[in-house]
Amino acid sequence: MTSSIASTADVSERAQLGENVTIGHGTIVHDNVVIGDNTRIDEFCVIGNDTGASQPPLTLGAHSRIRSHSVIYEGSTFGDRLETGHHVLLRAGANVGVNFRIGSYSSLEGAMNIGDYCRFQGGVQAGPGSQLGDFVWIFSNVVLTNDPLPPSHLFRPVTIEDGAVVALGAMTLPGCHIGKGSFVAAGARVSTQIPAGVFVTGDNTIAGPVTKLMDLQAGTRHPWMRHFADVFPDDAQSRISALHEEVLSAAKEWRNQHQSVSVRNAKPANV
Amino acid sequence: MTSSIASTADVSERAQLGENVTIGHGTIVHDNVVIGDNTRIDEFCVIGNDTGASQPPLTLGAHSRIRSHSVIYEGSTFGDRLETGHHVLLRAGANVGVNFRIGSYSSLEGAMNIGDYCRFQGGVQAGPGSQLGDFVWIFSNVVLTNDPLPPSHLFRPVTIEDGAVVALGAMTLPGCHIGKGSFVAAGARVSTQIPAGVFVTGDNTIAGPVTKLMDLQAGTRHPWMRHFADVFPDDAQSRISALHEEVLSAAKEWRNQHQSVSVRNAKPANV
Amino acid sequence: MTSSIASTADVSERAQLGENVTIGHGTIVHDNVVIGDNTRIDEFCVIGNDTGASQPPLTLGAHSRIRSHSVIYEGSTFGDRLETGHHVLLRAGANVGVNFRIGSYSSLEGAMNIGDYCRFQGGVQAGPGSQLGDFVWIFSNVVLTNDPLPPSHLFRPVTIEDGAVVALGAMTLPGCHIGKGSFVAAGARVSTQIPAGVFVTGDNTIAGPVTKLMDLQAGTRHPWMRHFADVFPDDAQSRISALHEEVLSAAKEWRNQHQSVSVRNAKPANV
Repeated sequence: MTSSIASTADVSERAQLGENVTIGHGTIVHDNVVIGDNTRIDEFCVIGNDTGASQPPLTLGAHSRIRSHSVIYEGSTFGDRLETGHHVLLRAGANVGVNFRIGSYSSLEGAMNIGDYCRFQGGVQAGPGSQLGDFVWIFSNVVLTNDPLPPSHLFRPVTIEDGAVVALGAMTLPGCHIGKGSFVAAGARVSTQIPAGVFVTGDNTIAGPVTKLMDLQAGTRHPWMRHFADVFPDDAQSRISALHEEVLSAAKEWRNQHQSVSVRNAKPANV
Repeated sequence: MTSSIASTADVSERAQLGENVTIGHGTIVHDNVVIGDNTRIDEFCVIGNDTGASQPPLTLGAHSRIRSHSVIYEGSTFGDRLETGHHVLLRAGANVGVNFRIGSYSSLEGAMNIGDYCRFQGGVQAGPGSQLGDFVWIFSNVVLTNDPLPPSHLFRPVTIEDGAVVALGAMTLPGCHIGKGSFVAAGARVSTQIPAGVFVTGDNTIAGPVTKLMDLQAGTRHPWMRHFADVFPDDAQSRISALHEEVLSAAKEWRNQHQSVSVRNAKPANV
Repeated sequence: MTSSIASTADVSERAQLGENVTIGHGTIVHDNVVIGDNTRIDEFCVIGNDTGASQPPLTLGAHSRIRSHSVIYEGSTFGDRLETGHHVLLRAGANVGVNFRIGSYSSLEGAMNIGDYCRFQGGVQAGPGSQLGDFVWIFSNVVLTNDPLPPSHLFRPVTIEDGAVVALGAMTLPGCHIGKGSFVAAGARVSTQIPAGVFVTGDNTIAGPVTKLMDLQAGTRHPWMRHFADVFPDDAQSRISALHEEVLSAAKEWRNQHQSVSVRNAKPANV
């Protein structure tokens, strides 16, 4: 199939479009852009903004969907099946794996690494230098910071390992490191090294293994891989299973090391 | 009067436009849309996005104003005199009463019910399933959540009754229920059942009847119906008066039940 | 040089454009607008929105850069070298000095005064009436409020003096006043009068002179003028030096007045 470009769109002749690409009303595609097959870009987007520096092209993988009013600079690479909300901003230098989904009003603010199958909700700001593994969940209004003494030239970005979850409005402060499958509660603040398989509340308070994080009413327990793997495509399932085992081991190990700590009462996830 | 459509706008022939509709520069109106008389839609909006499913039309009431860069999906109904800020996102399935006003960068994220005369400030995210009464005030950056164990398939949205106020940056956590005319202070967190006529600070802390919420300097007291009804149109006034009486009764009842609790000192609203 | 206007842009004949102005794809420039020389406005902007009232023109200074999807109303004045992120909203009545930089998704919500060389990060909402000096730093998601009893007709905006810093997600509550060079930590809440040269954590807690605010690992200390002046242009340097001296004096004075208070331990900036 050939591509479908709206008559009001403005697509550079130098941009490289795959098969069956759709470009929506008004959208502008600048020169330094490579778009994979079957990708659809909706209305009023700006694709491949010129940074003024020499940059590699913006590469958008196949089967992607970019929703309206999004802005994506040259100099970043996104794997297949990227999906954005509306009014998203992706600046130059992001190196992102497959099937990244990023919600409306969220932004990647510069050079960073994001693994496969990550999920961001709306209003997230990811600062330059962020290092995210695979299957990371970032909920609304989280800011991934990097400056420990704002404003300064110090640069200490955050690291978030595979399968970790940062809930609504939590603050990941400069230099923090969140281990595999750990969970940061809504409104919590993390500025330190958090091991794998635990959950964090308040200010860096490790409140127990992530397996203690339970919805009492439904009986559903974390980690999320046991009850939410079905939202990912088939090709991700074996990796999720392996990650689940790793997180369970880490949670068990943490519990063994902290047997004297009282963590008897399961906590609702958002407290 | 006939409608006024900018030459750069792209309006589907299948969309149904009322009398005297104005469509601004660049704006696109898709097929499945019904627009009431005297409604004005500004620049760069996307109206009636296709969800890919069979949906009822987007219905926008008469005398509405949609500001630039807003995105409104098919499958929602808005009463007359809807007013949006800029860069607003209204997804499919919202059932909204008359004279809803929603600020810039705010979003309705899916199917939900919102009563008449509600007011949202900027940066609000309302999650699917939210149930809001009439005259509800939601201030900046509030997120109405629904997942008690994120990420999960659990679904426990929030309920906010008539005349309630959720102040700046407060968190309404999954399953919470805020009673008529109650007030949630800036930065507070609510995850439980809050009765009518009270104010809440911190974590679910009921700090007194809403009538104790006072600006000491001006002598102005809550509930807001006694000093702020004038910002609503005439047709709303009798309903506001009746609601005011209900909230006063609830506040009095709460006070009678908690006479031994010391709530002598009026608190500034934002503490 | 003459101006460069995209063929898809819509520029009013009544708008006054300086020399070498660039107007990007799709952008609309309304009647009541004056644009300085060498200013560049990117894609999908709305410039000079009509407020429906009689207003002075929107005046944009020379050498400015307005990024895509921004909305700027008539009735405001910006000095030279204004720089906006994407999806910015600047309503009517702002009186802003030179070289203001405001990040993506941020908004000025109405009439206010902002001095020279101020810096806002992303997602900031500045409420009407805000009074900001020169060299003020506002980090992500801060809201400058003005209503002490929301919703009400009371109007008590915030004042932030020269060189002060409000870090990520802090709340500046109605009527607060932040002195020269003081620092409000991430997530803190300020509702009172804060003197010059101190830093604030929690709820209005003055935790020490700003000179105690130090990154232990790098040995970098606040105020920021000693290590971050280089990001400002040459013409600002003498003013920054003078401000630095003032802030150091204020910090010293505060320390002298509070010798009995234990502030021995330097605190990371984000705590």
